[in-house]
Amino acid sequence: MTLELLSSQKSFGGRHDRYRHRSATLQCDMAFAVYLPPQAERGSRLPVLYWLSGLTCTDENFMQKAGAHRLAAELGLVLVAPDTSPRGAGVPGDPDGAWDFGHGAGFYLNATQEPWARHYRMHDYVVHELPALIETSFPVSDRRGISGHSMGGHGALVCALRNPGRYRSLSAFAPIANPIDCPWGEKAFSHYLGADRETWKGWDACELLAGARERLPILVDQGDADGFLADQLKPEALRVAASAVGHPLTLRLQPGYDHSYYFIASFIDDHLRHHAAGLNP
Amino acid sequence: MTLELLSSQKSFGGRHDRYRHRSATLQCDMAFAVYLPPQAERGSRLPVLYWLSGLTCTDENFMQKAGAHRLAAELGLVLVAPDTSPRGAGVPGDPDGAWDFGHGAGFYLNATQEPWARHYRMHDYVVHELPALIETSFPVSDRRGISGHSMGGHGALVCALRNPGRYRSLSAFAPIANPIDCPWGEKAFSHYLGADRETWKGWDACELLAGARERLPILVDQGDADGFLADQLKPEALRVAASAVGHPLTLRLQPGYDHSYYFIASFIDDHLRHHAAGLNP
Repeated sequence: MTLELLSSQKSFGGRHDRYRHRSATLQCDMAFAVYLPPQAERGSRLPVLYWLSGLTCTDENFMQKAGAHRLAAELGLVLVAPDTSPRGAGVPGDPDGAWDFGHGAGFYLNATQEPWARHYRMHDYVVHELPALIETSFPVSDRRGISGHSMGGHGALVCALRNPGRYRSLSAFAPIANPIDCPWGEKAFSHYLGADRETWKGWDACELLAGARERLPILVDQGDADGFLADQLKPEALRVAASAVGHPLTLRLQPGYDHSYYFIASFIDDHLRHHAAGLNP
Repeated sequence: MTLELLSSQKSFGGRHDRYRHRSATLQCDMAFAVYLPPQAERGSRLPVLYWLSGLTCTDENFMQKAGAHRLAAELGLVLVAPDTSPRGAGVPGDPDGAWDFGHGAGFYLNATQEPWARHYRMHDYVVHELPALIETSFPVSDRRGISGHSMGGHGALVCALRNPGRYRSLSAFAPIANPIDCPWGEKAFSHYLGADRETWKGWDACELLAGARERLPILVDQGDADGFLADQLKPEALRVAASAVGHPLTLRLQPGYDHSYYFIASFIDDHLRHHAAGLNP
């Protein structure tokens, strides 16, 4: 696989690099960003935290706005941020041009319905193809953590819960916690997965928790002034699902915070420390 | 004066608010951003650090990308970021539509030439009108610091050097240190100030240092991989000018850093501490 370097910038003694590559899984070119802390230059094989972004985002939002480089440099964590969907002229988007489906809205699942099934396989891309590329191209270990925001928080939970043993740490900011029961999820799943709601359950964190084969502790932060809280995000459903099976979940409702990257930046240090504890036991 | 609240977001226990107001100085509507740390809710009258952004920026870039809220919240510093020029349908921009003059490129001076003189009075806006508005609208003191990046680093240096006693702390990131001797400055000054280069000297940090009436210590960071370093920024001219008059200047050449906000974020904590020391003696 060939990696094309798009840009490289020094940040907190490490490097923030953007690359483009041809994704065999998604059948299109994809960009991703990687933050390599200063320890990477010393040849250590470092753990990697994968960050999945929310609707409309690209690989750039988290790196620019979360303020994560500072502590990642201190903790020796590599950060990897993929794009949020397949892209390009040949990749179909929302038929109505909306922002909550299609381009920028891959929902980190494997689509089964046409015309989406050919390109929209973000689960396999994020869980398999991208880590394989990262682990052969950079001085990293196979110790992986995963986190994300909103649609990406849903993605992080689902990727970890579907793949026991693959991740050593897990967290989410304002995840779409129960997508089979909210407008964003119902729109996306009905297009990507079709009308049979039984098939949706394999991509819903609350449903997956019931049958989870490992008990990876989950840290979730959610702002209580988040305009999407009641209709789309539903963290209470996650609390109920975790409680029913005794899954370790720390769900923090943060008073006054909204859905933005200012909220993420305010608590990213706690998440990085949570991941560092799981990745460097 | 009426302030229209555009948005308000909690960040690190404080608030990041954007406002619009009618500027009498600039004869147009202007947006600005203010970060109020948690201490502002306790009624303390806090010091204010004014941040002047670079070419093409608005009030938003610094707040989103510099990662400054975290330490400002700890230090009890208010941050204020104005826009970089007058704006709007009635405000003339670059005749050729370029990005280095006109809208987004006010250069923090008072223009004397038509058609710029009516609106382009960013010096008076930043030094007088905006602080008067801030100091009557928020729980702040008249202890002011000033910093900025690139064109805004030039602006910070010039605003402080032209107005002894008005600021208690001063720093800059990659400032256009000697604008009368670089392409960006020559283009802007010839339009805003006219052909007489003698009049330009009043807006050049190196020239102003020679006659400075106070010796406010200056902290400057500059990346040595900054693509604008040799042709546009010229920090060595600032070092020579400061040295000639014994002005306290700490000029740090940071190896490998470029001109971006990743560079700013990497060193913003040092600048915030420099300002806190000057503002909270």
